[in-house]
Amino acid sequence: MCGIVGYIGKNEAAPVLIKGLKKLEYRGYDSAGIAVFGDGIHVVKTKGRLADLDAKVQTMGGVEGHVGIGHTRWATHGAPSDVNSHPHTSMNGRISVVHNGIIENYLQLKAELEEKGYVFASETDTEVVAQLFDYYYDGDMVDTLIRVIGRIRGSYALGILCSEKPDEIVAVRKDSPMLVGIGKNENFIASDIPALLEYTKDYYLLNDNEIVVLKKDGITILDLDKNEIKKDIYNVTWDISAAEKGGYDYFMMKEIMEQPKAFKATISPRIVDGEIKLDNIKYTDEDIKNINRIHIIACGSAWHAAIVGKYVIEDYARIPVEVDLASEFRYRNPILDKNDICIIISQSGETADTLAALREAKRQGIRILAIVNVVGSSIARESDDVLYTWAGPEIAVATTKGYSTQVALMYLLAMKFGQARGYLSAEEVKKLTAELELVPGYIEKLLTMDEELKELAKAHAHANDVFVIGRGIDYAVALEGSLKLKEISYIHSEAYAAGELKHGTISLIEEGTLVVAIATQDPLYEKLVSNVKEVKARGAYVVAIAKEGNTEIAEVADKVIYIPQINDKFTASLNVIPMQIFSYYVAIERGCDVDMPRNLAKSVTVE
Amino acid sequence: MCGIVGYIGKNEAAPVLIKGLKKLEYRGYDSAGIAVFGDGIHVVKTKGRLADLDAKVQTMGGVEGHVGIGHTRWATHGAPSDVNSHPHTSMNGRISVVHNGIIENYLQLKAELEEKGYVFASETDTEVVAQLFDYYYDGDMVDTLIRVIGRIRGSYALGILCSEKPDEIVAVRKDSPMLVGIGKNENFIASDIPALLEYTKDYYLLNDNEIVVLKKDGITILDLDKNEIKKDIYNVTWDISAAEKGGYDYFMMKEIMEQPKAFKATISPRIVDGEIKLDNIKYTDEDIKNINRIHIIACGSAWHAAIVGKYVIEDYARIPVEVDLASEFRYRNPILDKNDICIIISQSGETADTLAALREAKRQGIRILAIVNVVGSSIARESDDVLYTWAGPEIAVATTKGYSTQVALMYLLAMKFGQARGYLSAEEVKKLTAELELVPGYIEKLLTMDEELKELAKAHAHANDVFVIGRGIDYAVALEGSLKLKEISYIHSEAYAAGELKHGTISLIEEGTLVVAIATQDPLYEKLVSNVKEVKARGAYVVAIAKEGNTEIAEVADKVIYIPQINDKFTASLNVIPMQIFSYYVAIERGCDVDMPRNLAKSVTVE
Repeated sequence: MCGIVGYIGKNEAAPVLIKGLKKLEYRGYDSAGIAVFGDGIHVVKTKGRLADLDAKVQTMGGVEGHVGIGHTRWATHGAPSDVNSHPHTSMNGRISVVHNGIIENYLQLKAELEEKGYVFASETDTEVVAQLFDYYYDGDMVDTLIRVIGRIRGSYALGILCSEKPDEIVAVRKDSPMLVGIGKNENFIASDIPALLEYTKDYYLLNDNEIVVLKKDGITILDLDKNEIKKDIYNVTWDISAAEKGGYDYFMMKEIMEQPKAFKATISPRIVDGEIKLDNIKYTDEDIKNINRIHIIACGSAWHAAIVGKYVIEDYARIPVEVDLASEFRYRNPILDKNDICIIISQSGETADTLAALREAKRQGIRILAIVNVVGSSIARESDDVLYTWAGPEIAVATTKGYSTQVALMYLLAMKFGQARGYLSAEEVKKLTAELELVPGYIEKLLTMDEELKELAKAHAHANDVFVIGRGIDYAVALEGSLKLKEISYIHSEAYAAGELKHGTISLIEEGTLVVAIATQDPLYEKLVSNVKEVKARGAYVVAIAKEGNTEIAEVADKVIYIPQINDKFTASLNVIPMQIFSYYVAIERGCDVDMPRNLAKSVTVE
Repeated sequence: MCGIVGYIGKNEAAPVLIKGLKKLEYRGYDSAGIAVFGDGIHVVKTKGRLADLDAKVQTMGGVEGHVGIGHTRWATHGAPSDVNSHPHTSMNGRISVVHNGIIENYLQLKAELEEKGYVFASETDTEVVAQLFDYYYDGDMVDTLIRVIGRIRGSYALGILCSEKPDEIVAVRKDSPMLVGIGKNENFIASDIPALLEYTKDYYLLNDNEIVVLKKDGITILDLDKNEIKKDIYNVTWDISAAEKGGYDYFMMKEIMEQPKAFKATISPRIVDGEIKLDNIKYTDEDIKNINRIHIIACGSAWHAAIVGKYVIEDYARIPVEVDLASEFRYRNPILDKNDICIIISQSGETADTLAALREAKRQGIRILAIVNVVGSSIARESDDVLYTWAGPEIAVATTKGYSTQVALMYLLAMKFGQARGYLSAEEVKKLTAELELVPGYIEKLLTMDEELKELAKAHAHANDVFVIGRGIDYAVALEGSLKLKEISYIHSEAYAAGELKHGTISLIEEGTLVVAIATQDPLYEKLVSNVKEVKARGAYVVAIAKEGNTEIAEVADKVIYIPQINDKFTASLNVIPMQIFSYYVAIERGCDVDMPRNLAKSVTVE
């Protein structure tokens, strides 16, 4: 969350910054701003979307200058407002700062600076960095930055401009993402690749507390002792069109539609003649046999993929799996055995909570396997083994293909582990993988239900409360389906294990309340029908998701959405599709900005 | 859920049945009915509360007769309506049945009976039992009942009256509760003790498929081969006043106020000179050392107590704890090791989901420790060891003292296990138990906040959505606090691990949304304050629950409720109190029936 762009080079900075920020708007859109050096530093910032900033800059007749920093904000400290927007400047206007992260000791530093006469304009933690930088400034940007780093605690990606040094930008990151784009007679910093794509495909990744000195004709990267660090150049493998909407109204729908391709790309190279090949992870069969427990750690939708993982791994491989919310794991003194492993799931590979949990597990000597979409991201780099989801760039805040490919890898891992531990035969794995390879085609088929789901969405767009219920793996999907609806339509939707509803929450069911009942687990089917009857008896309108051929459910539910026949485990990859499309159309019907929902940001890089 | 009463004896049956049903109304109140034999069987039933039935009977000038059965319903199959109410009668009027539970194969039996010419009046599963009993009836009630039992699948407590046998009632139970009250020249069946208290304190407990023949002057209990079974007589240890409101408007407030006493009764006999004595459980220190994993299984609020248990046991005793929803545990093929144990938590000891999970664990040879409030309940009887919560009878549907005493036992177990495994010294246990003994006094103090919480409730009674957040153990309490509000006020409240909110649900926060932030875990305090700022920045109105002396929180929250200083673990017993009282007054303000919330029933005896 929060997007940063910095530019220095041959062109006018302001248009490059604003264009770059537009590509990062999924990271934050409470407010935005730029600082450009022309005749001194000129700061323009505003509450609202990038379009508002753009309009403000246009009204002013543009902002001239060839060096600048920009920011699009997701508020943590202080409500969205003009004054709380970035860049923040020192009281005397000398220093301008953009920041992503949280300065945890800002109150203390603020008090200290106020004693020295500094006056603060905003409620933000970031303004402290600008003032502190000014306080320590001794004519050398790097020396000053090193002193500032020594004082601040927390997480940060910082881009800093000084009116006395118009030919350089200094930057640094810790626990918040930042990369360096390599151009010709121009160079860049940015929170993520899409901001750079129009200008370059070459970039450096940064480790914590590596300092960047960005000039028009050169990039220097230093450690805290000012030793120069040699970095590898990375290349973006995907095309700029992958980060464009390509004819769809919203990225979310584009990404929903890309799921068959993404799912296939994720599983195909790893299934060879019916065998599972996870060559990029260094687990021997012996290693797998020795696993005592698995801890899967994630946030949000990735946590829902983790719950699917628990069901499948426990069943196929008989290894106890504990699923933890990353924000909880780190602080609850978890019991970890030396033969335990951690699986860390994150689309962006930069999720702050997840990264912190990873480091805690690593500190305790636990082997880490990451499931990540963004190549070279922090989580990927800090893990012992990485399995990439090949979903391609995901821009919409609400994940779809990211989640689906995470689930795909859960299946592969569960089968791989199951076979290594002797619970699945080669024959069974062959049969299962053949079935898994049918999933992309089945998803394709479900995507054609578009119109039907649009109608259903229209009928229920004005619901205040929705409940999504399921048993077993269907419950994991209920959690994900419910979150989709919540995120983008702002309907208060809640998922429940179907049997649990009657232990309290059923009191919320009244005439016409929408209940989505996922009913695709064959052995649990009868019990689920009982739960449907309980809510029907209280007046609920029930939409069921069931397997083709299940006609009984049509007798109890008001409407049934059918998914193709498939084994009970793999249903998780199909059930979620109608929930995504339904949520999308409910949000459209309610006039919501699907790609940039209120209050939310992609890639949550604060804890 | 569903309450059954049966009476045969010297007095008029109808008033006894209606009075008894009133005492069981917490078990179901969709509809109610009685069948009394006078000159033939007379059935009176109606949708609605007991008061409606009473009025209907009064209007008719009463129903005469000395034998009868009655029922108060919580709908499972078929909406609440006059025709779906119990008792159900056979087409010819000969047989009358009251039933608690679910007949799983009722559709198949119904089809079979329809083929034989039986016509059905209702949508219920119960009517099938009446018709089937009639079909098999051969002049002997017991023989007929045995044939019926042979045909039905599912759970049931049945009371049956036949117009040709006006001097007897037959009854049987399987997986649904029923007990037999022993009077003088009168005898009773009932789902629970309160129905009997006015008439007798002596009762028999029944095991599955034990058949009762109830006559005015005798009770015979038979097995399915008609061998007579000798039963022990149980005595109710508590007074009738314990099941009365005692001056309070609702049982719930009475039970909230009883918490200091209940908590004390639960811990005091088990703390002797600073040592924990759990003499009634047969665990040696060696047994405790050998525990590999603990599975805690429960539903609803008991599941929240289980989550507190996980935190405390893992921390004090370093045993991995898995908490499972009972409705999910049974069907997910759980991985159980011979050195694992199960802890089963249920206030009533009759929760159907929980009982089924217990049996599954037992079938797999796992040692079972029950935490139960009702002495002699099914879960208590079927477990290897039992720890009783000494909360006394809990009548309000929304649990308060039941939950609090479950949490109290979690603390004792965690300390006991921690000491046995060498993680806590005798000295530490002494210190901790001394602190735990302060809890009743602290709860007492919190109960004096009544007026302040009433004001707060008034201000927020019209909220549509509420979020309750916390980290660590505070999250467990958030779940319980949120459920309280949901159950009785019908506000859609939802609990979140505070760090997880920003991964989706924060999109639901808008200007004025009430967020209750539980902030009593010292090491997590700063992180929680960040989460509070995130929601404040989006307009939320934040009520914080914090420890006395924490003045910083007052700077970020709109309102702070203080609890006494206590160690981070034991906060769970204090935080929940203001949440209970707040929920109570919100419900009152909204005009809800606090003790009998819409759609809910105490003691959920269907799956």
